[in-house]
Amino acid sequence: MCKFWSEAVKRTEPYVPGEQLNDPDIIKLNTNENPYGPSPKVIDAIQNELTQKLHLYPAPGADALREEIGRYYQLDKDHVFIGNGSDEVLAFSFMAFFEQDARIRFPSVTYSFYPVYAKLFHIPYDDVPLNRDFTIPVASFFQSEGGVIIANPNAPTGLYLDLKSVEEIAANNPKQVVIIDEAYVDFAPGSAVSLVKDYPNLLIVQTMSKSRSLAGLRLGFAIGQPHLMEALHRIKDSFNSYTIDQLAIAGGTAAIQDEDYFQETTGQIINTREWLIPEMKKRGFCVLPSAANFIFASHYKVEAETLYQKLKQQKILIRHFQNAATANYVRITIGTEEQMERLLAAIDSIIVA
Amino acid sequence: MCKFWSEAVKRTEPYVPGEQLNDPDIIKLNTNENPYGPSPKVIDAIQNELTQKLHLYPAPGADALREEIGRYYQLDKDHVFIGNGSDEVLAFSFMAFFEQDARIRFPSVTYSFYPVYAKLFHIPYDDVPLNRDFTIPVASFFQSEGGVIIANPNAPTGLYLDLKSVEEIAANNPKQVVIIDEAYVDFAPGSAVSLVKDYPNLLIVQTMSKSRSLAGLRLGFAIGQPHLMEALHRIKDSFNSYTIDQLAIAGGTAAIQDEDYFQETTGQIINTREWLIPEMKKRGFCVLPSAANFIFASHYKVEAETLYQKLKQQKILIRHFQNAATANYVRITIGTEEQMERLLAAIDSIIVA
Repeated sequence: MCKFWSEAVKRTEPYVPGEQLNDPDIIKLNTNENPYGPSPKVIDAIQNELTQKLHLYPAPGADALREEIGRYYQLDKDHVFIGNGSDEVLAFSFMAFFEQDARIRFPSVTYSFYPVYAKLFHIPYDDVPLNRDFTIPVASFFQSEGGVIIANPNAPTGLYLDLKSVEEIAANNPKQVVIIDEAYVDFAPGSAVSLVKDYPNLLIVQTMSKSRSLAGLRLGFAIGQPHLMEALHRIKDSFNSYTIDQLAIAGGTAAIQDEDYFQETTGQIINTREWLIPEMKKRGFCVLPSAANFIFASHYKVEAETLYQKLKQQKILIRHFQNAATANYVRITIGTEEQMERLLAAIDSIIVA
Repeated sequence: MCKFWSEAVKRTEPYVPGEQLNDPDIIKLNTNENPYGPSPKVIDAIQNELTQKLHLYPAPGADALREEIGRYYQLDKDHVFIGNGSDEVLAFSFMAFFEQDARIRFPSVTYSFYPVYAKLFHIPYDDVPLNRDFTIPVASFFQSEGGVIIANPNAPTGLYLDLKSVEEIAANNPKQVVIIDEAYVDFAPGSAVSLVKDYPNLLIVQTMSKSRSLAGLRLGFAIGQPHLMEALHRIKDSFNSYTIDQLAIAGGTAAIQDEDYFQETTGQIINTREWLIPEMKKRGFCVLPSAANFIFASHYKVEAETLYQKLKQQKILIRHFQNAATANYVRITIGTEEQMERLLAAIDSIIVA
């Protein structure tokens, strides 16, 4: 610890993202990136923007992109907030809707950035244990003191909470904000955006890193009623006037517009996932039913840490979380069919050995 | 006020950036943008990056750019921190180095985002009055309780504080962090980066929006000893793992590498400024000696607000700040020579009328 550090720095326990190795031979199945590149129209839109006016500040609210996302969900742009990746949207949301004197709730197994935000902003929290089958105990999230945040589909389990349960949680926290982090929702049955008009306390957060293949461009967004969006804009405008660069605005807008490409590539990932799961089960894995672009799996004999290490030796990178509840599971991103065939071949060589 | 808003939202008084009008006929002299585009090598670097891997997350620390900035200043990359614009670097710095129970100090006339950050993070502050000639009263910044932040050159005055004075402020705050916000330093005699090795409490913040013509790409950075950089990284990694997108990393790195272009364009802006100032004086303006890419000027007869409005009618946008100390001044960005000639012609028509 350094004498110049604030108490906030001393409290931090930074999030550790998955490894980003530069070796081009590696099959990267560890950070839930999309194996298909972004829509060619995204590249075209950025090319067009690139020739113009990089010396000028971008539009501070990224309105073109807000309008396009609004159109996609049949909402006005005042229901949309854009952030520099959904992590920034979540950070602003913790600042905008949670307090230092009211305990918030999130599942004990979930996106591990939530406790990191809570520590940074000094927000007390209860991490609610999951049911034994990793499902979310819905009623345990009713009547929270300070608010709720749930990832749906949850990470790293991939399990999807039906919208009726989401609605019950929103309805049973009428004075608190309920954040549904839908990073993976485009691989799942449906978004809770449909509930936003009925629940003034419901905030939906999504990312363009997964289903829109734009992890490298840093775009996320929130959807909610305008009074929630105003709070996010007030925080943003007290933090950083221009969070989204010109090229990201242009590329993100094109990505939302190209719905055919989006449907085709997300559909392909879902198909690959549904083909992969029984293949994994044949090889002795327990695989949770996934509504995401990854699976969460445990082998009856080979330990998760061993599997992670041995696959890494074969240049296949998957993710293993050390905490007790999930220590015998690995999270594997759905790649292309060819990548999954190489994964299965590598697994065959490991479980036989 | 909305019942779902946190106390932090209620405290905010968001910063209001200069107008961004879409009319291409407007001469925009209101947000200190660089009239010359970025280096062609920046465009090439982004083009190259664009064809590759936008579906993958960027390097979380933007190390390629940290190394290049380090090389430029002959420092290791552990002395450099990259942010999504210098506003984000400043926001993280307020979180990392200032406390809610120790008053910080900044000049009463300065970048108006500082009190906005202080309100957001609930940090108490004293805004120290400038001397009557708008210079900074150096000794008034000694022995601060919670830290100091000074823009150098200052905004919107453009006045430069010599490095001996900066050093005295750093030396007389041995237990607090002193932030020097050098957004405009590349148009000034010299950077306080040269003092970093001797002052473990000195943090320099710079931007690529002005001298590197990349306002649209959102890049800023901090330079300081590694223990300060570690604090910024801990805050960032508790807030948003990937703040800088792939294209910005590539473009920013190319911008630092193309020193010839940088020297040529910043030199041209300085030449235009030095030519403009006597032209303005001839027309009855008091013009502060500027070390920035703007001038701060007051006319002996025409009120600042009138000048702002009448120039706007002629499609020339300048900036007028309403607060009492500067109400009779306007801030005018240095554009191309041709733009400045059109400005002078418009001024001629206004002061004669």
